[in-house]
Amino acid sequence: MPSTSLTFADRAAHRAWLATQGGLPRGFRAGASAFEFTPFEVAKPARMKLALLTLDRPTGAFAALFTRNAFPGAPVLVGRRRLGEPRLGAVLVNNKISNVCAPGGVEASERLCAEVARALRLSPTEVLPSSTGVIGWRLPVEAMVEALPAAVASLQGQSILPAADGIMTTDLYPKVRRFDLPGGGSIVGIAKGAGMIEPNLATMLVYLLTDAAVEREELRAALVAAVEVSFNAISIDSDTSTSDTVVALASGAAGPVDRTAFRAGLTRVCRDLAEDVVRNGEGVRHVMRVTVRGAPDAAAARALGKAVVNSPLLKTAVAGNDPNVGRLVMALGKEAGAKGMALDPARARLTMGGEPILEGGLFQLDREKERRLTAHLVAAELYPQAPAADGITFRPPVDFPRHERSVEIGIELGAGPGAAEVLGADLTHEYVTENADYRS
Amino acid sequence: MPSTSLTFADRAAHRAWLATQGGLPRGFRAGASAFEFTPFEVAKPARMKLALLTLDRPTGAFAALFTRNAFPGAPVLVGRRRLGEPRLGAVLVNNKISNVCAPGGVEASERLCAEVARALRLSPTEVLPSSTGVIGWRLPVEAMVEALPAAVASLQGQSILPAADGIMTTDLYPKVRRFDLPGGGSIVGIAKGAGMIEPNLATMLVYLLTDAAVEREELRAALVAAVEVSFNAISIDSDTSTSDTVVALASGAAGPVDRTAFRAGLTRVCRDLAEDVVRNGEGVRHVMRVTVRGAPDAAAARALGKAVVNSPLLKTAVAGNDPNVGRLVMALGKEAGAKGMALDPARARLTMGGEPILEGGLFQLDREKERRLTAHLVAAELYPQAPAADGITFRPPVDFPRHERSVEIGIELGAGPGAAEVLGADLTHEYVTENADYRS
Repeated sequence: MPSTSLTFADRAAHRAWLATQGGLPRGFRAGASAFEFTPFEVAKPARMKLALLTLDRPTGAFAALFTRNAFPGAPVLVGRRRLGEPRLGAVLVNNKISNVCAPGGVEASERLCAEVARALRLSPTEVLPSSTGVIGWRLPVEAMVEALPAAVASLQGQSILPAADGIMTTDLYPKVRRFDLPGGGSIVGIAKGAGMIEPNLATMLVYLLTDAAVEREELRAALVAAVEVSFNAISIDSDTSTSDTVVALASGAAGPVDRTAFRAGLTRVCRDLAEDVVRNGEGVRHVMRVTVRGAPDAAAARALGKAVVNSPLLKTAVAGNDPNVGRLVMALGKEAGAKGMALDPARARLTMGGEPILEGGLFQLDREKERRLTAHLVAAELYPQAPAADGITFRPPVDFPRHERSVEIGIELGAGPGAAEVLGADLTHEYVTENADYRS
Repeated sequence: MPSTSLTFADRAAHRAWLATQGGLPRGFRAGASAFEFTPFEVAKPARMKLALLTLDRPTGAFAALFTRNAFPGAPVLVGRRRLGEPRLGAVLVNNKISNVCAPGGVEASERLCAEVARALRLSPTEVLPSSTGVIGWRLPVEAMVEALPAAVASLQGQSILPAADGIMTTDLYPKVRRFDLPGGGSIVGIAKGAGMIEPNLATMLVYLLTDAAVEREELRAALVAAVEVSFNAISIDSDTSTSDTVVALASGAAGPVDRTAFRAGLTRVCRDLAEDVVRNGEGVRHVMRVTVRGAPDAAAARALGKAVVNSPLLKTAVAGNDPNVGRLVMALGKEAGAKGMALDPARARLTMGGEPILEGGLFQLDREKERRLTAHLVAAELYPQAPAADGITFRPPVDFPRHERSVEIGIELGAGPGAAEVLGADLTHEYVTENADYRS
């Protein structure tokens, strides 16, 4: 279930709410800068942003999870090495180019870390690099080094919002979530990600800052647990990025915290950010929330939920406000059949928007129910589809989330104790427009 | 590799070629009829076609493979029972409604078989039913029974084309392939399928007729082998239907055949039909042919090829003639990482259209190569994208296949002996239009 049910009338209202969320925990600073450049690989100019997150004093309490993609980006390779370092003092993030399998990629990331370290009087190994954007291109390192001083100069201790803005690529709006810990202190997280989102042990780029005093090992265990039920339970397009990274940093400035409360808070912030990522997914007009119960085990429940939200045919039907629930059954059966799960259709019970659609293995459909299901889909739409002005280019007409409603799909299988909640999205003309010609 | 490289100037030229392929093997007849009805579940009228394939004398030499989807349609349940029967004499196929998890679904299929049997003087268990179309709706059995005599009256022994027309749903054109066996006799196959296509041990609806005298067990073994490298190696949208069915019938009228030649012919017809299905896939503007070599084993090679052709981000890039090869690497790495394959990026070699794009783990890209890759994508396009007249409804402007060119993707991993060829397609505005509002 969502932790909030916010609605926003316009972008200004959303920005005002973001500002209330974005106060930095004690002991952190944030900043960003931007510049123009021409990639080595294409002749068209591009714009890159650099975001900086820094600690007033480097901390040993840091945690990070990275993509399991077998072709990881250079910053992921460098980041994995950093996990063994005693302290972290800064994170540098660039958008536009993800630095994956690029000639000289690791050297480029290390060079940038060294430049940040020089400016902030840190050791190079105390800087964590992150990159997101086009896969295959090389970083414009010299131009980035020139742009660094502006990012350093912009550092301030009030708001994380400039950094949340600075890490966006195709995101329509920044994503910021906070949790105020009992007894003082807070957890504040930002996320970037809108496409290539089916994280495998981490998601695109997520930074979680807390001033709670948490030991490194506890922070790492808490992060694994929180990511499992948040970023590992979402999918926008079933594609797992080469750059997925979730980082958690604890400054300790607010002193000790109750362990249970901290874990609950971290999980809450991760789940809220994960839902934000889906809601702001490329071309997303409907969020789907699939609640699976009665699966053989939790992994099966998660896999079945993922199969449902990743079915192109169900996704397109939802996009069209078409309650084609046969495709829901197809998607479930596809996954169960492919994995050889013992699943008895006669014990299955499926709902959409609370309406029973299949019970005892048989569909329960009639014309009146069809109308109610359609109404549920329409109510969950983030914006109505409009014809493209040029007949071919579909752009979302909003740059803020209007509401937090979802298409609610319930799956009860009667085949065991496994349960999971999975979030996904529809597949729209806006998604095709965004991705058929993203680079050029 | 494709067995043909045909080009067609227009629909008439394609129909003329189909006629040359569609001569029925000896011992078979084919026919079809159509009628209007109003489904129980929605108020809008619909049109259903019935196709009949019959044997002059029921045969014991028949084989069938069905979907592994865990929610199989009633005709699949009935069809599995038929595999144990001594003989088969007729196949009845309806489109528009797939009869899956519908109340009374099995009874409806058996009733139709009994009616066909009565008209053709067969036993009801000598009739195999097939249904394709909307999942969840009930068959209009009485209206179908009324339409049966017209289908029976249309039976003729010359051409399979009326049946190939009769089984289509969203297909743009019928799919017919033949192989003339050495020493007389032939194998003729028809296929239906355009969406919900990632078969798992079978594909949508495929009927293979031969007049060769083949024993039942040999026919069944040959079919399993042929399907493995044809229908099980394609994907249009990663969705596995609840109705997938491949049937092979041997009349024996042409006498014995060399076993090796028969297997080669059956495999050839299956692979050609599988490619036809992809080329005529919903909204398909580019066919992708992925050749994987050097994978740990054949299953891994297949899985990696499937991951490539099923990546929504690569599919949309291809749709836009955008050689965003970073997404190809992402898709490979997603699958290898998720499955824990030992895959060393430094040993990988990737090509597109014969151009090296990654070698030794590093991208090999420049502006001139980018132009050549774009030209390869444009050359493989089945038709150029045009703006929708109403700004929202994209329909393919062709109802025949212009050519048999594909986007050629080569993957060499240096990680073992596993090889596979996988066919897939792009993801276009036409696909979204087709599926966002298919039923209503």
